[in-house]
Amino acid sequence: MKVAVDAMGGDYAPHEIVKGAVEAAREFGVTAVLVGDESAINGELSRYRQGPPFAYEVVPTTQVVTFHDHPSEALRTRKDSSLYRAIQLVAEGRSDAIVSAGNTGAQMAISLFVLGRLPGLLRPGLITAVPSLTGEPSYFIDMGAAADCVPENILQFARMGQEYCKIVTGKDAPTVGLLNIGEEPEKGSRQMIETHKLLAAKVPEFIGNVEPKDVFRRAADVVVSDGFTGNIFTKTLESTAEALFGMMKVALSSSLKGKIGGALTHGDLHIVKDKLDYSQYGGVPLLGLKGISIVCHGRSDATAIYHAIRVARNVSDQGLVTRLEALWQ
Amino acid sequence: MKVAVDAMGGDYAPHEIVKGAVEAAREFGVTAVLVGDESAINGELSRYRQGPPFAYEVVPTTQVVTFHDHPSEALRTRKDSSLYRAIQLVAEGRSDAIVSAGNTGAQMAISLFVLGRLPGLLRPGLITAVPSLTGEPSYFIDMGAAADCVPENILQFARMGQEYCKIVTGKDAPTVGLLNIGEEPEKGSRQMIETHKLLAAKVPEFIGNVEPKDVFRRAADVVVSDGFTGNIFTKTLESTAEALFGMMKVALSSSLKGKIGGALTHGDLHIVKDKLDYSQYGGVPLLGLKGISIVCHGRSDATAIYHAIRVARNVSDQGLVTRLEALWQ
Repeated sequence: MKVAVDAMGGDYAPHEIVKGAVEAAREFGVTAVLVGDESAINGELSRYRQGPPFAYEVVPTTQVVTFHDHPSEALRTRKDSSLYRAIQLVAEGRSDAIVSAGNTGAQMAISLFVLGRLPGLLRPGLITAVPSLTGEPSYFIDMGAAADCVPENILQFARMGQEYCKIVTGKDAPTVGLLNIGEEPEKGSRQMIETHKLLAAKVPEFIGNVEPKDVFRRAADVVVSDGFTGNIFTKTLESTAEALFGMMKVALSSSLKGKIGGALTHGDLHIVKDKLDYSQYGGVPLLGLKGISIVCHGRSDATAIYHAIRVARNVSDQGLVTRLEALWQ
Repeated sequence: MKVAVDAMGGDYAPHEIVKGAVEAAREFGVTAVLVGDESAINGELSRYRQGPPFAYEVVPTTQVVTFHDHPSEALRTRKDSSLYRAIQLVAEGRSDAIVSAGNTGAQMAISLFVLGRLPGLLRPGLITAVPSLTGEPSYFIDMGAAADCVPENILQFARMGQEYCKIVTGKDAPTVGLLNIGEEPEKGSRQMIETHKLLAAKVPEFIGNVEPKDVFRRAADVVVSDGFTGNIFTKTLESTAEALFGMMKVALSSSLKGKIGGALTHGDLHIVKDKLDYSQYGGVPLLGLKGISIVCHGRSDATAIYHAIRVARNVSDQGLVTRLEALWQ
């Protein structure tokens, strides 16, 4: 299979992006279709002439989408950008998936416009794995694609999340929880009370409201929310973990005992950090499109890109798009 | 001054509640007005006959509000509960503040009904301190009192948050940020875009949107949000920290090296844990009422109650209610 990679998107583009793509191409036997500035890409590729061979193509483009570009503007005026062209390759059947660590808003807007929505779907949603104390992650949707939602959107997220969870975990009937500020059905905003009713009526595997603490206890296989709340939730989780590790580093470096202890605990704590590290999960798929678009963190390094391509390959192999399409028919 | 303490409210009531109240009464010279089951309270008090003297009163009641009681039901049918009577003591001028670790929803509903709103205020808000990497906390409102908000509610939270921050920190003109999912004014849900406009027009110290990561960097003195988003934010922060420390404990106990390192780092890491520990901040005031009502975590121990009474004393000494009242005149 072929994976189109936006070689110019991300804080560490093109170096880390090309590196991760080469590693994934070598490991998984996929063809990395590197889209972007031709000479920059070839410059990066020259580093990998030694070592195992790998399959690749270069698709040259002249524009880039920056993090400052407004999505609608990028959509209108950046048709020869690495991001736009990479997405187009999927629409044209010349790639099986697209991976980018660039401007997320632009990627979502261009993906929606160029690939199109699955018939019957109202709004696509971003799904991510959330680490839990059980060791097994739960799947959370929507982490920010649809800031304004109606209950029907969240019901569709639940159905797509269940299907995605089935693909990734092999479970038969994944349970669904609604992220909310209390357990009882009458808790939360008016919108969440309405959503609770709809999910209870339509999703047999719905277990009710879950609070943030319950997500870590893995109360449900799939947790759903509107994209605004979901973005606050996932960003708070990520930045709390970062802040905590930052504070710990400062605390441990303040005494000799701390420094020695820090050195001894480094390996074990690294495991915990990795569990919460987005790069280990690679990219997150935008569900509900007629094609596979994998969104990566702007700070993605080669490891994150490598894992994102792994995710792209897996969901493509499992027929993600066809399976999601079947949900609405 | 006198602080009414709901001796029956909380997971560790009455033991930890009475213990914290006694410690605070001894330390701060306040009178602890212990409200609840007379014999249970007297039983607890008998433990403190030795040691420094302290001022207290016991107000006997016959009912309790449990965590399962619906707020409106508690309001209607639990008039002789420890929570209801403790709040009434403030309304009657027999106490200067009320502290409870019981049912938060019931405390908010009864406080609103019995104490009443400040004239001109639409909805009360819960304010809390959020730890930051700078060492100095920022103040966050609303952490869950008003799940459904209009922009005007959030503007009022901003004004109350600024006044509270002035009281606590002595700052002249605290800055205000809006918790949102992107920095630019046009980011977020429709409601947040409208709120951004209103804050920009009405609050000279408004610095714009802040994302969760910015809160930890202390981008603003006061961060505002609707109560639904705020509750998700503060609960996610708390449960991420808890999950992380839980995972670390497991990771470190899995090897001898980890155990030794864990022992050496314990003191330093404890400092970080304390920074994120709600009990160090004690309770959080419900702002906008004609009286001081301090809400504590259900899991509050004696330390949390002690600090909550400290908070009650401080805001009472600083004339919190009068200063907030002046905002709407």
